[in-house]
Amino acid sequence: MNAVVPVNRDLQAERRAAAAQFRAELTERGIFCVNLMSSPGAGKTSLLQAMARVWPKPEQLAVLVGDIATDRDAERLAPCLRVRQLTTGGACHLDLKLVERGFAQLDLTGVEYLFVENIGNLVCPASHDLGEHLRVVVLSVTEGDDKPAKYPKAFRTSQACIISKIDLLPYVPFDLQAATADARSIQPEMTMLPVSATTGSGMAEWCDYLRRQRAAVLTDRANNFFGQR
Amino acid sequence: MNAVVPVNRDLQAERRAAAAQFRAELTERGIFCVNLMSSPGAGKTSLLQAMARVWPKPEQLAVLVGDIATDRDAERLAPCLRVRQLTTGGACHLDLKLVERGFAQLDLTGVEYLFVENIGNLVCPASHDLGEHLRVVVLSVTEGDDKPAKYPKAFRTSQACIISKIDLLPYVPFDLQAATADARSIQPEMTMLPVSATTGSGMAEWCDYLRRQRAAVLTDRANNFFGQR
Repeated sequence: MNAVVPVNRDLQAERRAAAAQFRAELTERGIFCVNLMSSPGAGKTSLLQAMARVWPKPEQLAVLVGDIATDRDAERLAPCLRVRQLTTGGACHLDLKLVERGFAQLDLTGVEYLFVENIGNLVCPASHDLGEHLRVVVLSVTEGDDKPAKYPKAFRTSQACIISKIDLLPYVPFDLQAATADARSIQPEMTMLPVSATTGSGMAEWCDYLRRQRAAVLTDRANNFFGQR
Repeated sequence: MNAVVPVNRDLQAERRAAAAQFRAELTERGIFCVNLMSSPGAGKTSLLQAMARVWPKPEQLAVLVGDIATDRDAERLAPCLRVRQLTTGGACHLDLKLVERGFAQLDLTGVEYLFVENIGNLVCPASHDLGEHLRVVVLSVTEGDDKPAKYPKAFRTSQACIISKIDLLPYVPFDLQAATADARSIQPEMTMLPVSATTGSGMAEWCDYLRRQRAAVLTDRANNFFGQR
Protein backbone atom coordinates (compact mmCIF):
# COMPACT_ATOMS: atom_id res chain seq x y z
CA MET A 1 0.00 0.00 0.00
CA ASN A 2 1.28 3.43 -0.88
CA ALA A 3 1.95 5.99 1.85
CA VAL A 4 -0.33 9.01 1.89
CA VAL A 5 1.63 12.18 1.03
CA PRO A 6 -0.09 15.35 2.25
CA VAL A 7 0.94 17.48 -0.74
CA ASN A 8 -1.07 20.49 0.34
CA ARG A 9 0.51 21.08 3.70
CA ASP A 10 2.01 24.52 4.05
CA LEU A 11 5.76 24.08 3.66
CA GLN A 12 6.24 27.82 3.89
CA ALA A 13 4.52 27.91 7.29
CA GLU A 14 6.65 24.98 8.45
CA ARG A 15 9.82 26.78 7.41
CA ARG A 16 8.73 29.98 9.10
CA ALA A 17 8.01 28.07 12.31
CA ALA A 18 11.40 26.33 12.22
CA ALA A 19 13.20 29.66 11.70
CA ALA A 20 11.23 31.26 14.54
CA GLN A 21 12.16 28.35 16.81
CA PHE A 22 15.87 28.68 15.99
CA ARG A 23 15.65 32.46 16.54
CA ALA A 24 14.03 31.88 19.94
CA GLU A 25 16.81 29.44 20.87
CA LEU A 26 19.45 32.00 19.91
CA THR A 27 17.68 34.73 21.87
CA GLU A 28 17.44 32.47 24.91
CA ARG A 29 21.20 31.92 24.75
CA GLY A 30 21.88 35.65 24.40
CA ILE A 31 23.25 35.24 20.86
CA PHE A 32 22.28 37.94 18.38
CA CYS A 33 22.22 36.59 14.81
CA VAL A 34 22.92 38.71 11.73
CA ASN A 35 22.27 37.50 8.16
CA LEU A 36 24.65 39.29 5.77
CA MET A 37 23.48 39.30 2.14
CA SER A 38 25.11 40.85 -0.93
CA SER A 39 26.34 40.39 -4.49
CA PRO A 40 29.54 38.38 -4.95
CA GLY A 41 32.57 40.40 -3.91
CA ALA A 42 30.72 43.22 -2.13
CA GLY A 43 33.01 42.84 0.88
CA LYS A 44 31.19 40.71 3.47
CA THR A 45 34.32 38.79 4.49
CA SER A 46 36.45 41.97 4.54
CA LEU A 47 33.82 43.61 6.76
CA LEU A 48 34.08 40.74 9.25
CA GLN A 49 37.89 40.92 9.17
CA ALA A 50 37.67 44.65 9.88
CA MET A 51 35.27 43.97 12.77
CA ALA A 52 37.78 41.55 14.30
CA ARG A 53 40.28 44.44 14.30
CA VAL A 54 38.04 46.99 16.05
CA TRP A 55 35.74 44.92 18.29
CA PRO A 56 37.01 45.06 21.90
CA LYS A 57 36.50 41.32 22.50
CA PRO A 58 36.57 39.45 19.16
CA GLU A 59 35.85 36.19 21.01
CA GLN A 60 32.25 37.47 21.31
CA LEU A 61 31.87 37.12 17.53
CA ALA A 62 31.32 33.87 15.60
CA VAL A 63 30.80 33.39 11.87
CA LEU A 64 29.12 30.82 9.65
CA VAL A 65 30.39 31.57 6.17
CA GLY A 66 28.51 30.24 3.13
CA ASP A 67 29.98 29.49 -0.26
CA ILE A 68 29.01 27.36 -3.23
CA ALA A 69 32.51 25.91 -3.44
CA THR A 70 35.87 26.28 -1.65
CA ASP A 71 36.57 27.14 1.98
CA ARG A 72 38.63 30.23 1.16
CA ASP A 73 36.50 32.62 3.22
CA ALA A 74 36.80 30.45 6.31
CA GLU A 75 40.57 30.36 5.73
CA ARG A 76 40.60 34.17 5.60
CA LEU A 77 38.58 34.49 8.81
CA ALA A 78 40.02 31.66 10.89
CA PRO A 79 43.09 33.61 12.10
CA CYS A 80 40.89 36.29 13.70
CA LEU A 81 37.40 34.88 14.40
CA ARG A 82 35.62 31.66 15.36
CA VAL A 83 34.32 30.37 12.02
CA ARG A 84 32.75 27.39 10.27
CA GLN A 85 32.50 27.11 6.48
CA LEU A 86 29.13 26.10 5.03
CA THR A 87 29.52 24.82 1.47
CA THR A 88 26.33 24.36 -0.53
CA GLY A 89 27.84 22.37 -3.41
CA GLY A 90 25.98 24.40 -6.03
CA ALA A 91 22.94 25.82 -4.23
CA CYS A 92 22.44 29.56 -4.63
CA HIS A 93 21.50 30.39 -1.01
CA LEU A 94 21.90 29.13 2.56
CA ASP A 95 19.01 27.31 4.18
CA LEU A 96 18.11 26.92 7.83
CA LYS A 97 19.16 23.27 8.09
CA LEU A 98 22.70 24.01 6.91
CA VAL A 99 22.94 26.96 9.32
CA GLU A 100 21.71 24.85 12.25
CA ARG A 101 24.22 22.11 11.39
CA GLY A 102 27.10 24.62 11.31
CA PHE A 103 25.85 26.26 14.51
CA ALA A 104 25.96 22.92 16.33
CA GLN A 105 29.66 22.61 15.43
CA LEU A 106 30.68 26.02 16.80
CA ASP A 107 32.29 26.50 20.19
CA LEU A 108 29.88 29.07 21.62
CA THR A 109 31.67 29.90 24.86
CA GLY A 110 31.32 33.64 25.35
CA VAL A 111 29.73 34.20 21.92
CA GLU A 112 27.24 37.10 21.80
CA TYR A 113 26.97 37.67 18.04
CA LEU A 114 26.60 35.12 15.24
CA PHE A 115 27.16 36.36 11.69
CA VAL A 116 25.84 34.27 8.82
CA GLU A 117 27.68 35.31 5.67
CA ASN A 118 25.28 34.22 2.95
CA ILE A 119 26.14 33.11 -0.62
CA GLY A 120 27.11 36.07 -2.81
CA ASN A 121 23.77 36.50 -4.55
CA LEU A 122 21.47 39.52 -4.36
CA VAL A 123 18.39 37.52 -5.36
CA CYS A 124 17.73 34.06 -3.91
CA PRO A 125 18.96 34.41 -0.28
CA ALA A 126 16.30 37.08 0.34
CA SER A 127 13.59 34.39 0.27
CA HIS A 128 15.06 32.33 3.13
CA ASP A 129 14.65 33.08 6.84
CA LEU A 130 17.71 31.67 8.62
CA GLY A 131 16.50 32.48 12.11
CA GLU A 132 18.38 35.78 12.15
CA HIS A 133 17.43 38.73 14.34
CA LEU A 134 18.82 41.24 11.87
CA ARG A 135 19.09 41.11 8.11
CA VAL A 136 21.69 43.37 6.53
CA VAL A 137 22.21 43.90 2.82
CA VAL A 138 25.71 44.99 1.80
CA LEU A 139 25.98 47.13 -1.35
CA SER A 140 29.43 48.16 -2.57
CA VAL A 141 29.82 51.55 -4.24
CA THR A 142 31.36 49.88 -7.29
CA GLU A 143 28.05 48.12 -8.06
CA GLY A 144 26.17 51.35 -8.73
CA ASP A 145 23.49 53.28 -6.84
CA ASP A 146 20.61 51.76 -8.84
CA LYS A 147 20.65 48.32 -7.20
CA PRO A 148 17.86 48.62 -4.57
CA ALA A 149 15.10 49.13 -7.14
CA LYS A 150 16.56 46.44 -9.40
CA TYR A 151 16.89 43.82 -6.62
CA PRO A 152 13.94 44.85 -4.43
CA LYS A 153 13.42 41.77 -2.25
CA ALA A 154 16.94 41.84 -0.76
CA PHE A 155 16.36 45.45 0.28
CA ARG A 156 12.69 45.15 1.26
CA THR A 157 13.45 42.34 3.72
CA SER A 158 16.53 43.99 5.31
CA GLN A 159 16.58 46.34 8.29
CA ALA A 160 19.96 47.87 7.45
CA CYS A 161 22.03 48.54 4.35
CA ILE A 162 25.81 48.74 4.57
CA ILE A 163 27.29 50.81 1.75
CA SER A 164 30.73 49.21 1.48
CA LYS A 165 34.04 50.23 -0.13
CA ILE A 166 33.36 53.95 0.37
CA ASP A 167 37.14 54.54 0.05
CA LEU A 168 36.53 53.96 -3.70
CA LEU A 169 33.90 56.74 -3.97
CA PRO A 170 36.33 59.18 -5.68
CA TYR A 171 36.79 56.74 -8.57
CA VAL A 172 33.26 55.50 -9.32
CA PRO A 173 29.95 57.11 -10.35
CA PHE A 174 28.05 56.33 -7.13
CA ASP A 175 25.69 58.85 -5.52
CA LEU A 176 25.16 58.01 -1.84
CA GLN A 177 22.03 60.16 -1.62
CA ALA A 178 20.56 58.51 -4.71
CA ALA A 179 21.29 55.03 -3.25
CA THR A 180 19.69 56.04 0.06
CA ALA A 181 16.60 57.39 -1.70
CA ASP A 182 16.41 54.25 -3.84
CA ALA A 183 16.74 51.95 -0.81
CA ARG A 184 14.15 53.89 1.21
CA SER A 185 11.70 53.84 -1.69
CA ILE A 186 11.78 50.04 -1.22
CA GLN A 187 12.16 49.96 2.58
CA PRO A 188 11.31 53.30 4.26
CA GLU A 189 12.79 52.28 7.66
CA MET A 190 16.20 51.29 6.23
CA THR A 191 19.21 52.22 8.36
CA MET A 192 22.03 53.28 6.02
CA LEU A 193 25.61 52.56 7.15
CA PRO A 194 28.45 53.76 4.85
CA VAL A 195 31.62 51.80 5.65
CA SER A 196 35.14 51.16 4.43
CA ALA A 197 36.74 47.96 5.71
CA THR A 198 40.03 49.20 4.25
CA THR A 199 40.24 52.56 6.03
CA GLY A 200 37.99 51.68 8.99
CA SER A 201 35.67 54.60 8.21
CA GLY A 202 32.13 53.94 9.50
CA MET A 203 33.15 50.81 11.43
CA ALA A 204 32.42 52.40 14.84
CA GLU A 205 28.90 53.37 13.74
CA TRP A 206 28.24 49.84 12.41
CA CYS A 207 29.47 48.25 15.66
CA ASP A 208 27.39 50.66 17.78
CA TYR A 209 24.35 49.86 15.65
CA LEU A 210 24.85 46.14 16.30
CA ARG A 211 25.14 46.66 20.06
CA ARG A 212 21.90 48.67 20.11
CA GLN A 213 20.06 46.06 18.04
CA ARG A 214 21.25 43.24 20.29
CA ALA A 215 20.22 45.16 23.41
CA ALA A 216 16.75 45.71 21.92
CA VAL A 217 16.33 41.98 21.29
CA LEU A 218 17.44 41.16 24.85
CA THR A 219 14.94 43.67 26.24
CA ASP A 220 12.29 41.93 24.22
CA ARG A 221 13.45 38.69 25.79
CA ALA A 222 12.98 40.15 29.25
CA ASN A 223 9.45 41.11 28.21
CA ASN A 224 8.75 37.69 26.74
CA PHE A 225 8.46 39.10 23.24
CA PHE A 226 11.46 37.21 21.89
CA GLY A 227 11.13 35.02 18.86
CA GLN A 228 8.45 37.18 17.24
CA ARG A 229 8.97 39.38 14.22
CA MET B 1 -11.13 10.28 -16.32
CA ASN B 2 -7.89 11.91 -15.20
CA ALA B 3 -5.28 12.89 -17.76
CA VAL B 4 -2.10 10.85 -17.69
CA VAL B 5 0.84 13.02 -16.64
CA PRO B 6 4.18 11.55 -17.76
CA VAL B 7 6.12 12.75 -14.71
CA ASN B 8 9.30 10.98 -15.69
CA ARG B 9 9.85 12.56 -19.06
CA ASP B 10 13.16 14.31 -19.35
CA LEU B 11 12.44 18.00 -18.96
CA GLN B 12 16.15 18.77 -19.17
CA ALA B 13 16.38 17.07 -22.55
CA GLU B 14 13.32 18.99 -23.74
CA ARG B 15 14.89 22.26 -22.66
CA ARG B 16 18.18 21.42 -24.35
CA ALA B 17 16.34 20.57 -27.57
CA ALA B 18 14.36 23.84 -27.46
CA ALA B 19 17.56 25.85 -26.92
CA ALA B 20 19.31 24.02 -29.77
CA GLN B 21 16.37 24.76 -32.03
CA PHE B 22 16.45 28.48 -31.20
CA ARG B 23 20.23 28.52 -31.71
CA ALA B 24 19.79 26.88 -35.14
CA GLU B 25 17.17 29.49 -36.07
CA LEU B 26 19.52 32.30 -35.08
CA THR B 27 22.39 30.74 -37.01
CA GLU B 28 20.19 30.36 -40.08
CA ARG B 29 19.37 34.07 -39.91
CA GLY B 30 23.04 35.00 -39.52
CA ILE B 31 22.50 36.33 -35.98
CA PHE B 32 25.25 35.53 -33.48
CA CYS B 33 23.87 35.35 -29.93
CA VAL B 34 25.91 36.20 -26.82
CA ASN B 35 24.71 35.44 -23.28
CA LEU B 36 26.32 37.93 -20.85
CA MET B 37 26.39 36.73 -17.23
CA SER B 38 27.79 38.45 -14.13
CA SER B 39 27.22 39.61 -10.57
CA PRO B 40 24.99 42.67 -10.10
CA GLY B 41 26.81 45.84 -11.12
CA ALA B 42 29.76 44.19 -12.89
CA GLY B 43 29.24 46.47 -15.87
CA LYS B 44 27.27 44.52 -18.50
CA THR B 45 25.16 47.52 -19.52
CA SER B 46 28.15 49.86 -19.53
CA LEU B 47 30.01 47.37 -21.75
CA LEU B 48 27.14 47.44 -24.27
CA GLN B 49 27.05 51.24 -24.15
CA ALA B 50 30.80 51.30 -24.84
CA MET B 51 30.30 48.87 -27.77
CA ALA B 52 27.74 51.22 -29.28
CA ARG B 53 30.44 53.92 -29.26
CA VAL B 54 33.15 51.88 -30.99
CA TRP B 55 31.27 49.47 -33.27
CA PRO B 56 31.36 50.76 -36.87
CA LYS B 57 27.65 49.99 -37.52
CA PRO B 58 25.77 49.90 -34.18
CA GLU B 59 22.58 48.97 -36.05
CA GLN B 60 24.11 45.47 -36.38
CA LEU B 61 23.74 45.03 -32.60
CA ALA B 62 20.53 44.25 -30.68
CA VAL B 63 20.06 43.67 -26.96
CA LEU B 64 17.58 41.80 -24.77
CA VAL B 65 18.21 43.10 -21.27
CA GLY B 66 16.99 41.14 -18.26
CA ASP B 67 16.11 42.52 -14.87
CA ILE B 68 14.04 41.38 -11.92
CA ALA B 69 12.35 44.77 -11.70
CA THR B 70 12.48 48.17 -13.47
CA ASP B 71 13.33 48.96 -17.10
CA ARG B 72 16.28 51.19 -16.22
CA ASP B 73 18.82 49.26 -18.28
CA ALA B 74 16.66 49.43 -21.40
CA GLU B 75 16.31 53.17 -20.79
CA ARG B 76 20.10 53.47 -20.63
CA LEU B 77 20.60 51.50 -23.84
CA ALA B 78 17.68 52.75 -25.95
CA PRO B 79 19.43 55.95 -27.12
CA CYS B 80 22.27 53.95 -28.71
CA LEU B 81 21.10 50.37 -29.44
CA ARG B 82 18.03 48.39 -30.43
CA VAL B 83 16.80 46.99 -27.12
CA ARG B 84 13.91 45.20 -25.39
CA GLN B 85 13.62 44.92 -21.62
CA LEU B 86 12.85 41.46 -20.19
CA THR B 87 11.50 41.74 -16.64
CA THR B 88 11.25 38.51 -14.66
CA GLY B 89 9.15 39.88 -11.79
CA GLY B 90 11.29 38.13 -9.17
CA ALA B 91 12.92 35.21 -10.96
CA CYS B 92 16.69 34.96 -10.56
CA HIS B 93 17.59 34.12 -14.17
CA LEU B 94 16.34 34.45 -17.73
CA ASP B 95 14.75 31.45 -19.40
CA LEU B 96 14.46 30.55 -23.05
CA LYS B 97 10.74 31.34 -23.34
CA LEU B 98 11.24 34.91 -22.13
CA VAL B 99 14.17 35.37 -24.51
CA GLU B 100 12.18 34.02 -27.46
CA ARG B 101 9.27 36.32 -26.62
CA GLY B 102 11.59 39.36 -26.50
CA PHE B 103 13.33 38.26 -29.68
CA ALA B 104 9.99 38.13 -31.53
CA GLN B 105 9.42 41.80 -30.62
CA LEU B 106 12.75 43.07 -31.95
CA ASP B 107 13.15 44.72 -35.33
CA LEU B 108 15.90 42.50 -36.76
CA THR B 109 16.63 44.38 -39.98
CA GLY B 110 20.39 44.29 -40.45
CA VAL B 111 21.02 42.72 -37.02
CA GLU B 112 24.09 40.43 -36.89
CA TYR B 113 24.64 40.19 -33.12
CA LEU B 114 22.11 39.62 -30.35
CA PHE B 115 23.26 40.24 -26.78
CA VAL B 116 21.25 38.77 -23.94
CA GLU B 117 22.14 40.65 -20.77
CA ASN B 118 21.20 38.17 -18.07
CA ILE B 119 20.00 38.92 -14.51
CA GLY B 120 22.87 40.10 -12.28
CA ASN B 121 23.52 36.78 -10.56
CA LEU B 122 26.69 34.69 -10.76
CA VAL B 123 24.90 31.48 -9.78
CA CYS B 124 21.51 30.59 -11.26
CA PRO B 125 21.79 31.87 -14.88
CA ALA B 126 24.65 29.40 -15.51
CA SER B 127 22.15 26.52 -15.45
CA HIS B 128 20.02 27.85 -18.32
CA ASP B 129 20.84 27.52 -22.03
CA LEU B 130 19.22 30.48 -23.79
CA GLY B 131 20.15 29.34 -27.30
CA GLU B 132 23.31 31.46 -27.31
CA HIS B 133 26.35 30.72 -29.47
CA LEU B 134 28.72 32.28 -26.96
CA ARG B 135 28.54 32.51 -23.20
CA VAL B 136 30.60 35.26 -21.59
CA VAL B 137 31.06 35.78 -17.87
CA VAL B 138 31.90 39.34 -16.82
CA LEU B 139 33.99 39.74 -13.66
CA SER B 140 34.76 43.25 -12.41
CA VAL B 141 38.11 43.85 -10.72
CA THR B 142 36.31 45.28 -7.67
CA GLU B 143 34.78 41.84 -6.93
CA GLY B 144 38.13 40.18 -6.25
CA ASP B 145 40.25 37.66 -8.14
CA ASP B 146 38.92 34.65 -6.17
CA LYS B 147 35.50 34.47 -7.85
CA PRO B 148 36.01 31.72 -10.49
CA ALA B 149 36.70 28.96 -7.93
CA LYS B 150 33.89 30.24 -5.69
CA TYR B 151 31.28 30.40 -8.48
CA PRO B 152 32.52 27.55 -10.68
CA LYS B 153 29.51 26.83 -12.88
CA ALA B 154 29.34 30.34 -14.35
CA PHE B 155 32.99 30.04 -15.36
CA ARG B 156 32.96 26.35 -16.37
CA THR B 157 30.12 26.94 -18.86
CA SER B 158 31.56 30.14 -20.40
CA GLN B 159 33.93 30.38 -23.37
CA ALA B 160 35.20 33.85 -22.48
CA CYS B 161 35.71 35.95 -19.37
CA ILE B 162 35.66 39.72 -19.56
CA ILE B 163 37.60 41.32 -16.71
CA SER B 164 35.76 44.64 -16.44
CA LYS B 165 36.54 48.01 -14.80
CA ILE B 166 40.30 47.59 -15.29
CA ASP B 167 40.62 51.38 -14.93
CA LEU B 168 40.06 50.72 -11.19
CA LEU B 169 43.01 48.28 -10.91
CA PRO B 170 45.27 50.86 -9.17
CA TYR B 171 42.76 51.14 -6.30
CA VAL B 172 41.78 47.53 -5.58
CA PRO B 173 43.60 44.34 -4.55
CA PHE B 174 42.97 42.42 -7.79
CA ASP B 175 45.66 40.24 -9.40
CA LEU B 176 44.88 39.70 -13.10
CA GLN B 177 47.25 36.72 -13.32
CA ALA B 178 45.68 35.10 -10.25
CA ALA B 179 42.19 35.59 -11.70
CA THR B 180 43.32 34.10 -15.04
CA ALA B 181 44.87 31.10 -13.30
CA ASP B 182 41.73 30.69 -11.18
CA ALA B 183 39.45 30.86 -14.24
CA ARG B 184 41.58 28.43 -16.26
CA SER B 185 41.67 25.95 -13.36
CA ILE B 186 37.88 25.78 -13.87
CA GLN B 187 37.82 26.17 -17.66
CA PRO B 188 41.21 25.57 -19.31
CA GLU B 189 40.12 27.01 -22.70
CA MET B 190 38.87 30.32 -21.27
CA THR B 191 39.61 33.42 -23.37
CA MET B 192 40.44 36.29 -21.00
CA LEU B 193 39.50 39.81 -22.11
CA PRO B 194 40.48 42.70 -19.79
CA VAL B 195 38.31 45.73 -20.58
CA SER B 196 37.42 49.20 -19.35
CA ALA B 197 34.13 50.56 -20.64
CA THR B 198 35.13 53.93 -19.15
CA THR B 199 38.48 54.40 -20.92
CA GLY B 200 37.79 52.11 -23.90
CA SER B 201 40.83 50.00 -23.09
CA GLY B 202 40.45 46.43 -24.42
CA MET B 203 37.27 47.23 -26.38
CA ALA B 204 38.94 46.64 -29.78
CA GLU B 205 40.14 43.18 -28.68
CA TRP B 206 36.66 42.27 -27.39
CA CYS B 207 35.01 43.41 -30.64
CA ASP B 208 37.58 41.51 -32.75
CA TYR B 209 36.98 38.41 -30.65
CA LEU B 210 33.24 38.66 -31.33
CA ARG B 211 33.76 39.01 -35.09
CA ARG B 212 35.99 35.91 -35.14
CA GLN B 213 33.51 33.88 -33.10
CA ARG B 214 30.63 34.88 -35.37
CA ALA B 215 32.65 34.00 -38.47
CA ALA B 216 33.43 30.57 -36.98
CA VAL B 217 29.73 29.91 -36.38
CA LEU B 218 28.86 30.97 -39.93
CA THR B 219 31.56 28.65 -41.29
CA ASP B 220 29.98 25.87 -39.28
CA ARG B 221 26.68 26.81 -40.88
CA ALA B 222 28.20 26.42 -44.35
CA ASN B 223 29.40 22.97 -43.29
CA ASN B 224 26.03 22.05 -41.80
CA PHE B 225 27.44 21.86 -38.30
CA PHE B 226 25.29 24.72 -36.98
CA GLY B 227 23.12 24.20 -33.98
CA GLN B 228 25.45 21.67 -32.37
CA ARG B 229 27.62 22.36 -29.34
